Amino acid sequence: MKKIRIVLPAVFLAVLVCCLCAPISSSIAAPDVTHFTLKNGLEVVVIPDRRTPVVTHMVWYRVGAADEEPGKSGLAHFLEHLMFKGTAKNPAGRFSRVVGTIGGQENAFTSSDYTGYYQRVSRDKLKEMMEFEADRMTGLVLTDDVVKPELNVVLEEQNQRVANSPVAKLGEEVQAALYLNHPYGRPVIGWRHEIEKLTRDDALAFYRKFYTPNNAILVIAGDVTADEVKKLAEETYGKVARVSELPPRKRPQEPEQRSVRTVTLSDPRVAQPSLQRSYLVPSIATAKAGEAEALEVLSHILGSGTNCRLYTTLVMQKQIAVSAGAWYQNSSLDDTRFGVSGTPRPNVTLPQLDEAIDAVIADLADKGVTADELERAKSRLVAETIYAQDNQATLARWFGGGMTTGSTVEGIRAWPDRIKTVTADQVRDAARQWLDKRRSVTGFLIKDTARPEEKRS
Amino acid sequence: MKKIRIVLPAVFLAVLVCCLCAPISSSIAAPDVTHFTLKNGLEVVVIPDRRTPVVTHMVWYRVGAADEEPGKSGLAHFLEHLMFKGTAKNPAGRFSRVVGTIGGQENAFTSSDYTGYYQRVSRDKLKEMMEFEADRMTGLVLTDDVVKPELNVVLEEQNQRVANSPVAKLGEEVQAALYLNHPYGRPVIGWRHEIEKLTRDDALAFYRKFYTPNNAILVIAGDVTADEVKKLAEETYGKVARVSELPPRKRPQEPEQRSVRTVTLSDPRVAQPSLQRSYLVPSIATAKAGEAEALEVLSHILGSGTNCRLYTTLVMQKQIAVSAGAWYQNSSLDDTRFGVSGTPRPNVTLPQLDEAIDAVIADLADKGVTADELERAKSRLVAETIYAQDNQATLARWFGGGMTTGSTVEGIRAWPDRIKTVTADQVRDAARQWLDKRRSVTGFLIKDTARPEEKRS
Repeated sequence: MKKIRIVLPAVFLAVLVCCLCAPISSSIAAPDVTHFTLKNGLEVVVIPDRRTPVVTHMVWYRVGAADEEPGKSGLAHFLEHLMFKGTAKNPAGRFSRVVGTIGGQENAFTSSDYTGYYQRVSRDKLKEMMEFEADRMTGLVLTDDVVKPELNVVLEEQNQRVANSPVAKLGEEVQAALYLNHPYGRPVIGWRHEIEKLTRDDALAFYRKFYTPNNAILVIAGDVTADEVKKLAEETYGKVARVSELPPRKRPQEPEQRSVRTVTLSDPRVAQPSLQRSYLVPSIATAKAGEAEALEVLSHILGSGTNCRLYTTLVMQKQIAVSAGAWYQNSSLDDTRFGVSGTPRPNVTLPQLDEAIDAVIADLADKGVTADELERAKSRLVAETIYAQDNQATLARWFGGGMTTGSTVEGIRAWPDRIKTVTADQVRDAARQWLDKRRSVTGFLIKDTARPEEKRS
Repeated sequence: MKKIRIVLPAVFLAVLVCCLCAPISSSIAAPDVTHFTLKNGLEVVVIPDRRTPVVTHMVWYRVGAADEEPGKSGLAHFLEHLMFKGTAKNPAGRFSRVVGTIGGQENAFTSSDYTGYYQRVSRDKLKEMMEFEADRMTGLVLTDDVVKPELNVVLEEQNQRVANSPVAKLGEEVQAALYLNHPYGRPVIGWRHEIEKLTRDDALAFYRKFYTPNNAILVIAGDVTADEVKKLAEETYGKVARVSELPPRKRPQEPEQRSVRTVTLSDPRVAQPSLQRSYLVPSIATAKAGEAEALEVLSHILGSGTNCRLYTTLVMQKQIAVSAGAWYQNSSLDDTRFGVSGTPRPNVTLPQLDEAIDAVIADLADKGVTADELERAKSRLVAETIYAQDNQATLARWFGGGMTTGSTVEGIRAWPDRIKTVTADQVRDAARQWLDKRRSVTGFLIKDTARPEEKRS
């Protein structure tokens, strides 16, 4: 069975926000969520979902690329790959083989703030999954025989996802230019020259520091009760000893940003020029009361769907763009990104599109939003929350993703109600305060006609 | 006596290159330099200069801002200030008072790669200086009573030098945008919000890690012999025990850079718009044979004096600039910066100046330099070396600065001969390879007419 792992570097986050992350925040009063902590410090969240006899079993570690030591970029993601290399009790391949044999699904993912592993299986297999996952929480065995080939796998992944993708490469450089000081400037997949030097010792040291029950959250969604899960968790994870004590996650913060930045990448492989801009803005964890909610609504009014300001103005009215949108990466332990992007029509230059985007934002910041826009955005955000609950893994992801980026179970559950309180003035003020170009980097992707196409190997 | 300390953040380096650093490299076959190491690991360089009965006494530590832990920016420079706060044997103020009383001079300075302290005194006071400096190498005593007020001094320095200077603030952001991964992106003086949080414990931990005889270089220039210095050094510094062992200085390196970047700062206090561009280029320590020498000659042909390409083309012929120049920060442990700057005439925009600079560089990269230009640049570089030897402190600085950034005594002494071997083809190739805009950040400083002048406190 092919293991699918999701790494979330700069540019993919934008996509992921649309597919998964926006719903993280748009949760949930509905399910009867239980939250408790085992004696060894493992937090447990149980989300009952009794429609089918299936469970989603996830373990989230409070560690991601932003927790790496400088010079070791890509280590969190590399370790995620290595977590499939077996323990003394369960040699490499056995865990995945069992998941496959019973018709389950598995996955793993790394972001700047967290690393997670999950399986979706029939409910009677839950304990077995817990045993496997508890075993590899501290029991991983790594030899150079398995580490070195896996490094080549990761390098090939970097090659496919970034080195051979001008859009992704530009995204990396925009993010590096946005964060002057914070490690969020570092790509989750790592800088290639640093990935190349990662070793077994690096991976083991990172593992022993961060993979410990007191740094993890177990999230179970599905056809189970909290009592059942508690008993099973104590029998499995409860036996895993704490292997380290971790200080609070304090990363270097950004200085006051005062300059407008651009990054221009020209590449012969570019078929279609495009523009991507990121602003440094507060996340749910760092915002003052109401700010993150207003930014969320703003991102929808400005740039979500075909009724949004950017689309109606640039694509439909002015007909200078073929696409335009905005996104807000709301869940992030430290200050995060608000993104705007667009693709010009032929014969429209990127600076022209850039100016037109500025005008749309300036108009919103000046005149504010209409009552109708506000209501539509809020209704859609709340509705998305409800639809998204249909997917068990999404439900589990909301809580895991929120809790590893500074939110509480209560805060996550209250999000739809928090969205409902947003006023038109708050949305306008968010645009005025945070969509300040002096806190932004604009990336331009252009076709390089001077150089022949080159493929990096 | 007022203590003068030099901190070298982004923008000041450019100035320093012109005044001091270029000569660092343009040294010296002349003086009979001796180099030896004491048993405790302290390296000693003696540069006889018998014209007057004066000595320059310098201690250089192989530690600077790029060696700080992320989140503690400004710590190397803050510790430099705190080094004047006294020891158990010599309470605060005594050392400086003695230097003043005997009519000496003293100074201290911090860069990304080194921290140094020096006194210039009559030769009979050398041993006393060595005793003082050896005493504070490991004997510093710090209490909150002295640390906290000094933090305010440093914050005021940041305020004067950076926060209230739009040129310097732009320089900081250009440097942060140039270095995507390497700590050279961090200002030497520190980010203000991080300076504010520096503590006595931070300073002491940094001191105990890096201030040890095996991490220092003693440079003595003046009316002394190597034998005299050796005897005195053994009697003073020789008694200082090693307090730590340090690993090689390996900082996170830059990924391959592929994008053209701009940083625009608009500020109501700007009297005169200007442009500053930095390219990421090899330093003496990281270059292949001949490359650093070619970059040095290139910087002179392109942008030094009023006969250089930028000045003659932009100021004299096209009359679109009031000034234009270039510099190369040759001594740097890791990849360094090649800078180009200009100030437009009224009614010339910064993008126009930017394009005109591009054209000058493209022409040089295309057609190369003339035999006459090459000879003039090389002669002037060698001549500067000879003139500069007239200043004892400059001589000492060449060796201290070179040796803390990866050069050897032999390499430093051979520099003028290395410059003499540079060919016209090498200069053209250096321009082609390294003055690639995809390895650069261009900063634009413009007057903000929309906002009233604000003074940050």
